[in-house]
Amino acid sequence: MRNIKIVLEYDGTNYGGWQKQKDVKTVQGELEKAIFKITKEEVKTIGCSRTDSGVHSRHYVVNFNTESRVPSDRFTKALNTKLPDDIRVLESSEVSVDFHSRYHCIGKTYSYTLLNKEIASVMLRNYTWHIERELDINKMIEASKYLVGKHDFSSFRNTGSSALTTVRTITDISIKKEDFLLKIYISADGFLYNMARIIVGTLVQVGLGRIMPTDVEKILHLKDRRKAGKSAPPQGLCLENVFY
Amino acid sequence: MRNIKIVLEYDGTNYGGWQKQKDVKTVQGELEKAIFKITKEEVKTIGCSRTDSGVHSRHYVVNFNTESRVPSDRFTKALNTKLPDDIRVLESSEVSVDFHSRYHCIGKTYSYTLLNKEIASVMLRNYTWHIERELDINKMIEASKYLVGKHDFSSFRNTGSSALTTVRTITDISIKKEDFLLKIYISADGFLYNMARIIVGTLVQVGLGRIMPTDVEKILHLKDRRKAGKSAPPQGLCLENVFY
Repeated sequence: MRNIKIVLEYDGTNYGGWQKQKDVKTVQGELEKAIFKITKEEVKTIGCSRTDSGVHSRHYVVNFNTESRVPSDRFTKALNTKLPDDIRVLESSEVSVDFHSRYHCIGKTYSYTLLNKEIASVMLRNYTWHIERELDINKMIEASKYLVGKHDFSSFRNTGSSALTTVRTITDISIKKEDFLLKIYISADGFLYNMARIIVGTLVQVGLGRIMPTDVEKILHLKDRRKAGKSAPPQGLCLENVFY
Repeated sequence: MRNIKIVLEYDGTNYGGWQKQKDVKTVQGELEKAIFKITKEEVKTIGCSRTDSGVHSRHYVVNFNTESRVPSDRFTKALNTKLPDDIRVLESSEVSVDFHSRYHCIGKTYSYTLLNKEIASVMLRNYTWHIERELDINKMIEASKYLVGKHDFSSFRNTGSSALTTVRTITDISIKKEDFLLKIYISADGFLYNMARIIVGTLVQVGLGRIMPTDVEKILHLKDRRKAGKSAPPQGLCLENVFY
């Protein structure tokens, strides 16, 4: 029995998220079908994270056990011939049998991309949240500082996950503008359900001047989901990296 | 009667090209439906170019006559509320009644984007042609020089158009590499059917070392479509600009 680790890139637009579901096309479902075509085994893949419908990833880590003799680095090419073109394997390798892509993950970086101009871009429609009114990026940066560190993020999570604690450590939030694109990178030791999207939704409220940067600190301390902004839509979100 | 000029951006992935057809979703068809919703008129739009299925545009010029009293600059916002999100109106204005977006066009610039790396990119799959083997960009630049100028481009057109002459003037070809993206910009006073894609297909043959840069001059002089490379696939092509 070998434990194979693969790194995926996928465009989540046409999928109901990572996790396998009945009657819904998912990334895990497509991957397991492709693995079956190569190994003739019905493997159970372990993904590093549940990602929602419409969310993307540039570096999604998966592991699975196999009895097959396919050389570990050959899975990359072999799977890419079987996968749909919105899912690519970037690398494959053999790892120790106890490696678990979810349990052993010690941190992740998500990016969120906003398109801040009057008219939306057709080519970026599946990868950005279009905000017509100009965002005040300096206020957003100021607000983001209150979130960095170890906090109870109860105000920034939706129900629906079984996390044991709502305390997480955000190690960094960086916000950069390039032409009309505003990119928000959030790194943390872990994310509660919808946490990245609720943080972005709240920072956008700050950028639009609807709340003050200091309000974000208050929202954090209130530990009340209703005080934070709406979840930003999924298509702007991308899992950029996973750390072990 | 007013003559309205609009500039469109569209993602051609989900369309059977610009031109209206029965039973096929086209950009012109969607645009005319949106105009009907605003003006209640069944207008006949005139597009600057026929673009093929899967080809994109960042600056596509259209004009149409209308009796409606909608202020000309209001068409932008009004149409964008009715159009699907892969077609956007960038600007709208009233022009002289004799302006004709196709007849009065004196030049166009197309871009073609190649992704030159081992593994394809999921986010760029609809906007690039993925070439795994490394392309020699210097040879491609050398080859492109033979095409610039006034020539009979019979070797670089497919049948299917009713052009009166096969002589065109290419004013510029520029080829630039940025990371793994190779961008080819071709400007000409006009393009024969599939001309941009056949030029790119031929330059890729040069970049792969299958033919020499000087062969491109020979192909041009032979005036024989069978001597040039295959048409590059549509999704890498984008109409970038139209000149009047």
